[in-house]
Amino acid sequence: MTITSLNNQYIKEARSLSRKKERILTGKYLIEGVRLVEEAVASGLALEYALYTERVANNPRGKILLDKLIAAGLNCVDVDERALASITETEQSQGIVTVAPLPTVPWKAVLEKEDPFILIVDGLQDPGNLGTIIRTAEGAGLSGVLLTAGTVDPHSPKVIRAAMGSLFRLPVATVPSVEQLVNILQEKKISIVVADATDGVPYFEAQWAQKNVAVVIGSEAVGPQPLFRDKASMTVSIPLVPPVESLNAAIAASVLIFEAARHRSVASKKGL
Amino acid sequence: MTITSLNNQYIKEARSLSRKKERILTGKYLIEGVRLVEEAVASGLALEYALYTERVANNPRGKILLDKLIAAGLNCVDVDERALASITETEQSQGIVTVAPLPTVPWKAVLEKEDPFILIVDGLQDPGNLGTIIRTAEGAGLSGVLLTAGTVDPHSPKVIRAAMGSLFRLPVATVPSVEQLVNILQEKKISIVVADATDGVPYFEAQWAQKNVAVVIGSEAVGPQPLFRDKASMTVSIPLVPPVESLNAAIAASVLIFEAARHRSVASKKGL
Repeated sequence: MTITSLNNQYIKEARSLSRKKERILTGKYLIEGVRLVEEAVASGLALEYALYTERVANNPRGKILLDKLIAAGLNCVDVDERALASITETEQSQGIVTVAPLPTVPWKAVLEKEDPFILIVDGLQDPGNLGTIIRTAEGAGLSGVLLTAGTVDPHSPKVIRAAMGSLFRLPVATVPSVEQLVNILQEKKISIVVADATDGVPYFEAQWAQKNVAVVIGSEAVGPQPLFRDKASMTVSIPLVPPVESLNAAIAASVLIFEAARHRSVASKKGL
Repeated sequence: MTITSLNNQYIKEARSLSRKKERILTGKYLIEGVRLVEEAVASGLALEYALYTERVANNPRGKILLDKLIAAGLNCVDVDERALASITETEQSQGIVTVAPLPTVPWKAVLEKEDPFILIVDGLQDPGNLGTIIRTAEGAGLSGVLLTAGTVDPHSPKVIRAAMGSLFRLPVATVPSVEQLVNILQEKKISIVVADATDGVPYFEAQWAQKNVAVVIGSEAVGPQPLFRDKASMTVSIPLVPPVESLNAAIAASVLIFEAARHRSVASKKGL
């Protein structure tokens, strides 16, 4: 039976998950569209339920996915287009959304990994940029991404979309206190590398540590906060040709983490 | 007198410029918002006219800009909010839009520059990515950006926004024929470096030319077209940790052009 009521409990809950507050209250978030749901399944996420319209079965890939979810015993609720459109931007949903439990990554666990290679994102507001950064971070082999309190919520729909599945696999967590984070980084001798748009060693001349690195990237407007700067092992910049004064934050983060990854790769080849 | 009619000639023309076809027909495009109009003025663009509402004068920066445009003798037309909203997404306009002539960059001129350092964007559809690439390209010191026919129009509003003013300064042009482009690159001994997501030398181990480089980046889905691959001096890839198979195109382009820029910088320090 197709559910049409906008007050159905599943539809109401799923709709509420576009708001951060509701995600925190319920401990759940929304994954929209065939490709992302495929990634979620492949990544082994314990989905709670799916909502779909007949439209998902119109494309072969959508049909295969839905059959797989049903075969796995997931509660798959047939809804009408209006109900699904009330939850999400319709173009993104492709006729299917699922609800997943928020991951419970303790932020300190990211720092416990062997040879930690961490990106710290400080105060970035743009969800597309954060998602792109998470995707790049997984591709560059990072241990995880830590976010400061002023950074956009990683489980907002636009972050999830830009992360292209990497958010389902890479540990990503928000730290409650920058003081505590910096203390642990220092205790564990993890080198803090701060990115600064103007004031720093050119990143390709800097003496990168070959292991145990935390790269800190701030927002384009203000950069990383003073505490990171004060405790930094080094400050690096990406030299730019005027009048360009800064790069998009996702671009800057990516150039720097690939540079850090290259030094790690050299180290591992040397058997260090 | 405030213009309120949606049929006013300026308002009709400005509204039509959200469409590529109209931009080509009129030879004009739209620049929206205080910051971008400031950049356009600073870059010396010969603006045709401005449309503004009283809202622009509500913020000091907007007021200074408007006074400057009026003092420079630009035709500044006072319109009401509804008229401006009919042209553009209101949040972006901040009460001001201007109309500028499309630049007439002959694409071959980009290849005539001394020690050319070019990015070729082949078939990229996402406007935000193209804009970010143009911004990065200017910051990395490129001679210009060339686009193949299947690439999004660089004067669409989202590209302009993401380019943050770089589009007003850096030569950006669409090439009519990839065959012709490749022939000229070969005649001029400009090294063609093709980015491939999987099949290529790791970019940090590749033998980059120190001058005369054209980096070719394709769309995430299909990569650069075969003709570029066939004529490439080398194919490079950015090694990724599975299961990540590719990067966002703007990220990949940026990592590679900064690598090329680094080799040029080493060459210029050696006085080559």
